Amino acid sequence: MSPKNIDKLNCSIASALDIIGEGWTILILREAFFGSRRFEDFQKHLGIARNILTVRLNKLCDSGVLVRVPIKVGAKRNEYRLTPMGSDLAVILIGLTQWGDRWLNPTQGAPVTFIERATGKAVADIAIFTRDGKKLKPRELAVKPGPGATAETIARLKLIPDVRRKKKKN
Amino acid sequence: MSPKNIDKLNCSIASALDIIGEGWTILILREAFFGSRRFEDFQKHLGIARNILTVRLNKLCDSGVLVRVPIKVGAKRNEYRLTPMGSDLAVILIGLTQWGDRWLNPTQGAPVTFIERATGKAVADIAIFTRDGKKLKPRELAVKPGPGATAETIARLKLIPDVRRKKKKN
Repeated sequence: MSPKNIDKLNCSIASALDIIGEGWTILILREAFFGSRRFEDFQKHLGIARNILTVRLNKLCDSGVLVRVPIKVGAKRNEYRLTPMGSDLAVILIGLTQWGDRWLNPTQGAPVTFIERATGKAVADIAIFTRDGKKLKPRELAVKPGPGATAETIARLKLIPDVRRKKKKN
Repeated sequence: MSPKNIDKLNCSIASALDIIGEGWTILILREAFFGSRRFEDFQKHLGIARNILTVRLNKLCDSGVLVRVPIKVGAKRNEYRLTPMGSDLAVILIGLTQWGDRWLNPTQGAPVTFIERATGKAVADIAIFTRDGKKLKPRELAVKPGPGATAETIARLKLIPDVRRKKKKN
């Protein structure tokens, strides 16, 4: 199911998908953000088979997205909590929810709204900004090799048409 | 592989994942954002099997994320272009890339940097903001039922511990 040559792709999306790309996994994370911690809660709310849930939770723990914590001091049973690495996926989950709301649920409206807890106000649509706060449209974007780019990635990015057009103009 | 009771989940993430959750699919979208349009380009840059690529491209077209356009006027062969619905996924792809950069590639650095084409400056990290521009941390967030929430979703969201705590405080 998932791409095998992930390292070769030299791509953080590919590495990220290797952890969270599988359908159930993001729904498990959604449940974690909704406050589920115990195996039974994930199982009940998602209606997921126990063996699949076990595999996914193990992978999320091995990857550092979730961490096992005893349900109380000295207890043998564990619950699953988001690590900072896991909490950092909130922006992806909200963005994906809003995209689904915009394009897949336009008539009945959003099933769930994300709000600021302190004020109860809905959060803004997740968007792309420059560092000085200007909102960017997808077509205003380009890519360039980062510090971790391999020679192959650098060669690949040179083939991008928009970058070529930009170079010709200058 | 993917959850079967998607409608029952009343969740835009689940609906979104039904389209773009599969590992290869987001990498195909990445290629589309990099400027690939022709079947051969996707195939070459991703090293994906032709039969899998065909299935994924068909699904993305059926879903409205990509559209087939003749390679030139009157040509029988088509290329694949992002629709506005597809371009609207840029924020997800960038967010996912940045998350991978932060947590999975911390030492060698980002393989690819997203920049504003006009200025060449790197875009800011994708983040969660209130509508009046205040940046929010994941723990400052809560959820409430939206206009499209089913009775089941409303009942589910009532079970969220953070919301309960908030209610008690008020």
